Amino acid sequence: MSRFFDKRFSELEAYTPGEQPRDMKYVKLNTNESPYPPSPGVIKAMAERELSERMRLYPDPECLAVRESLAALLGVGKDELVLTNGSDESLAFAFMSFCERGVIFPEISYGFYKVFAQLYGLNYRQIPLKDDFTIDPDDYIGTDETVFIANPNAPTGLFMPLCDIERIAASNPDRLVVIDEAYVDFGGESAIPLTKKYDNLLVIQTFSKSRSMAGARLGFAVGCADIIRDMNTIRYSTNPYNINSATLAMASAAVADNDYYLDNCKKIINTRTDTTEKLRALGFEVLDSKCNFIFAKHPLLDGEAYYKELKSRGVLVRHFGSEKIRDYNRITIGTPEMMDTLLKQTREILGAKRG
Amino acid sequence: MSRFFDKRFSELEAYTPGEQPRDMKYVKLNTNESPYPPSPGVIKAMAERELSERMRLYPDPECLAVRESLAALLGVGKDELVLTNGSDESLAFAFMSFCERGVIFPEISYGFYKVFAQLYGLNYRQIPLKDDFTIDPDDYIGTDETVFIANPNAPTGLFMPLCDIERIAASNPDRLVVIDEAYVDFGGESAIPLTKKYDNLLVIQTFSKSRSMAGARLGFAVGCADIIRDMNTIRYSTNPYNINSATLAMASAAVADNDYYLDNCKKIINTRTDTTEKLRALGFEVLDSKCNFIFAKHPLLDGEAYYKELKSRGVLVRHFGSEKIRDYNRITIGTPEMMDTLLKQTREILGAKRG
Repeated sequence: MSRFFDKRFSELEAYTPGEQPRDMKYVKLNTNESPYPPSPGVIKAMAERELSERMRLYPDPECLAVRESLAALLGVGKDELVLTNGSDESLAFAFMSFCERGVIFPEISYGFYKVFAQLYGLNYRQIPLKDDFTIDPDDYIGTDETVFIANPNAPTGLFMPLCDIERIAASNPDRLVVIDEAYVDFGGESAIPLTKKYDNLLVIQTFSKSRSMAGARLGFAVGCADIIRDMNTIRYSTNPYNINSATLAMASAAVADNDYYLDNCKKIINTRTDTTEKLRALGFEVLDSKCNFIFAKHPLLDGEAYYKELKSRGVLVRHFGSEKIRDYNRITIGTPEMMDTLLKQTREILGAKRG
Repeated sequence: MSRFFDKRFSELEAYTPGEQPRDMKYVKLNTNESPYPPSPGVIKAMAERELSERMRLYPDPECLAVRESLAALLGVGKDELVLTNGSDESLAFAFMSFCERGVIFPEISYGFYKVFAQLYGLNYRQIPLKDDFTIDPDDYIGTDETVFIANPNAPTGLFMPLCDIERIAASNPDRLVVIDEAYVDFGGESAIPLTKKYDNLLVIQTFSKSRSMAGARLGFAVGCADIIRDMNTIRYSTNPYNINSATLAMASAAVADNDYYLDNCKKIINTRTDTTEKLRALGFEVLDSKCNFIFAKHPLLDGEAYYKELKSRGVLVRHFGSEKIRDYNRITIGTPEMMDTLLKQTREILGAKRG
């Protein structure tokens, strides 16, 4: 670090995004992107000459058009919604704004929670999962710290029923509960309707997964108008023009094309079911995923060795080194053809293993 | 504020962006946008079907292609450069990272500096300008706090010679000096070459003004590799995918089309000279701007009243309420036609005034 860097960041360990190797073309199943392109409307919106000519002007800092259509789709008011530069920015604002009394989150979850807690100098506790990798809601009942829960959780893929979220929120109305629903569209159920009943509930979603827009960077947070106003205070104090005009145009088109994305989710769920069955038939233990990925291990395969074998064969999945999950790999659900490649290579790896 | 909001933000006054009224179509001279569209290459890049199809994938978090071409254009190494979501994000990172011993900046300058200082809980001092609105370099010589200077300064438009920047940087090598060059392409001279000699100098620029890409949100910071590494530690701890794929594609094309933007800058400088002369002929006092705006007052016109009169006539400029500059308006340089409209309306306003 330079001699100018604030000493409180000297131990900060930044987040490591999934690898983006440039050495060859991979079947890319490592960063939970959608295998399907954005909707025809989004592709059309991007090609409009008017959009690129309008780039000379600042975007609308209020993001009004997108907020109105998205709020209508979600069944909330436009003042109960804020758009951010990916859902990571929603999370950053929440960690920065609402965590004076510390934070708690599951020990195995989105790795960024710990980074945010360290970045903002927060007291944090990481709560172990149960042995079956589920989150025990009782660990979060009545605690004082702000709660961050990914639901479904990553990288496990497991979904916690809404009745448990509700119990956690109800157990301490003076403590905020943040539900990170990056993967909720693949078989989970959103807590957004609960924000009407609980003003201490903030729900964060993203256009990166089910809406095929990881490259456009758009996330959003839904909660009561007071909390959203606070998030806007922070947004207008860091980057009022946080969403660019191309992303706004794509988002409007994506909201209008919602049925296209619902269809994609159905396809991905079907592919997930099929891949899960086939991997289980090969002896894999596969958790019951409600996400666009599965979390799997095999009694004969070392987790890291399997990841490396797949990579050398042109299939990229994600392996996490931390102790409790090092036997597993997280495998994004791609097209049926992509999963056939994964299965073919896996059969060969297992065949070589079994001799 | 909600009952969850961190109390240290209870007094935070967020930045107020220039107004974006929707009631009618204005000759928009209030937010220093370029009147010229992005280059033909940028418009072509946006229309590529491949770009919108690629939106399903995350952008390159290293922004390698743009960093390489932009670094070559600037004559620096690619590790001496970081890209951010507008230059506001570069500023946010700098205020967050390098200001343990407090900050100083001119009292009249970009209004966001004070917001950042408050957001990050920094000690700050605002140094008055001289009576002629210039910055006195001696005020910043040998001080301990991190220095933020906009050069040229806004909203005055005045440029501080590089020899003064150099004196400030050299006077205390253990203190960082941040030069915000949002407007440098309109007749100023960049301090980027000085970053080779002074490792305590960080220079921030933007694609929003001279490169007609305010809607795309792209800024960057240039400094020694150690400082840039620190900024990347913060970037990877807040939002590793801070630049979206459309903006990266536009940026690559914009760098390749650099001559187009140099031509635009020449046009804007000519229009500025012409407008300045004509306003002075009407009795305005106009500061000697090196920006794509001018800062002007008239002995017969109250600053706010002139702003309101222009707005009611469909011309939008920016008025700041703070005491020392309330007689002035900041007027963006548009096309010659846009400036003719400004001048025509101004003559009418003055005519009515003189009866």
